[in-house]
Amino acid sequence: MKAMGLHNLVLVAPARFPHADASARASGADDLLAAAQIVASLDAAIADCGLVIATSARGRSLPWPVVDPRAAAHQARASALPVAVVFGRERSGLSNDELDRCHLHLQIPTDPAFSSLNLAAAVQIICYELRCAAGRSAPGPAIEAPATAAELEGLYEHLRTVSEASGFLDPDQPRVLMRRFRRLFGRARIEAAELRMLRGLLSAVDPRRG
Amino acid sequence: MKAMGLHNLVLVAPARFPHADASARASGADDLLAAAQIVASLDAAIADCGLVIATSARGRSLPWPVVDPRAAAHQARASALPVAVVFGRERSGLSNDELDRCHLHLQIPTDPAFSSLNLAAAVQIICYELRCAAGRSAPGPAIEAPATAAELEGLYEHLRTVSEASGFLDPDQPRVLMRRFRRLFGRARIEAAELRMLRGLLSAVDPRRG
Repeated sequence: MKAMGLHNLVLVAPARFPHADASARASGADDLLAAAQIVASLDAAIADCGLVIATSARGRSLPWPVVDPRAAAHQARASALPVAVVFGRERSGLSNDELDRCHLHLQIPTDPAFSSLNLAAAVQIICYELRCAAGRSAPGPAIEAPATAAELEGLYEHLRTVSEASGFLDPDQPRVLMRRFRRLFGRARIEAAELRMLRGLLSAVDPRRG
Repeated sequence: MKAMGLHNLVLVAPARFPHADASARASGADDLLAAAQIVASLDAAIADCGLVIATSARGRSLPWPVVDPRAAAHQARASALPVAVVFGRERSGLSNDELDRCHLHLQIPTDPAFSSLNLAAAVQIICYELRCAAGRSAPGPAIEAPATAAELEGLYEHLRTVSEASGFLDPDQPRVLMRRFRRLFGRARIEAAELRMLRGLLSAVDPRRG
């Protein structure tokens, strides 16, 4: 991270931190580790981010927008708001719930016959692409004022409550519907103004209103 | 190396080989390590190569053609003869004598304030660029079955009527709201299944329904 010019490390509910092994391995970059921000949840880590990129090794039943490291780095470069790149656990990666909270899924191209890449290697490749992209002139932002991850969570909660109140949400399959909403609006990189518009409509049509 | 589809490892006069530590760390790729070719000199390692690329952290008094990993990978891809990428020792890198034997010098872009990159990280970045250049990355499709233009018009009409019926649509500015909807869902390249989901929700919350 440090060699690639990145400095903001956020650890979500680390099992052990600080830890002597980590400090020893961070030789020369231990300042970055010491300054790491510790948060209790992924939501807290990404709340102020306008673009949240998950690293994921596997395909999913519901295909999410998948980009390679280079495309992800270019989108990151174009973002007006902070960008998060989310890495999962060394062995099990990110949960479906965590993946749902991310706008883009990033896959590193590997040999299909042997796609195993340890966490450090994946981090290195992506930090490298971020540095390469930073060295090039930034394209204009694709969207104007993106909604933050926290604002998006507010929209999803609003969609859920109105869907339930109207009887649209199948109580047996709430997760499938909500995941589809997340996928659509995450992919669209919805703007703050568009999000307010949708919430205005949701409030207007809320059956509990009158 | 193996995850990036590379298989030909040549070790020049290794101090200890085979070694239990190396075998243990190569988990899953120990076949590649076991098949490594052992030679006595760099000359022997690169003898049949048409392009020899040295990785080097430092500048030299005599300027050599210096490329970044991406340019090196493209040159490697274009070579009709075998290509060697030469890595030095973990601590001291390549000697001037070894650097002189290489056609190109490759430097990985790093933060000038902290350019330290361990050998494994450097190997990973360059193997990744070689794989990208080989053009074998195939990310999955971002969307499945896009909605047709006619289906989109149906959605916009549905949004308009429900917005009106609920009192959300400002009768003085219908075009601004509708244009925002078009911009959002057009940008998202909404899928047919997502569109049906939204129309289902709109039907459920339509005030004229009950």
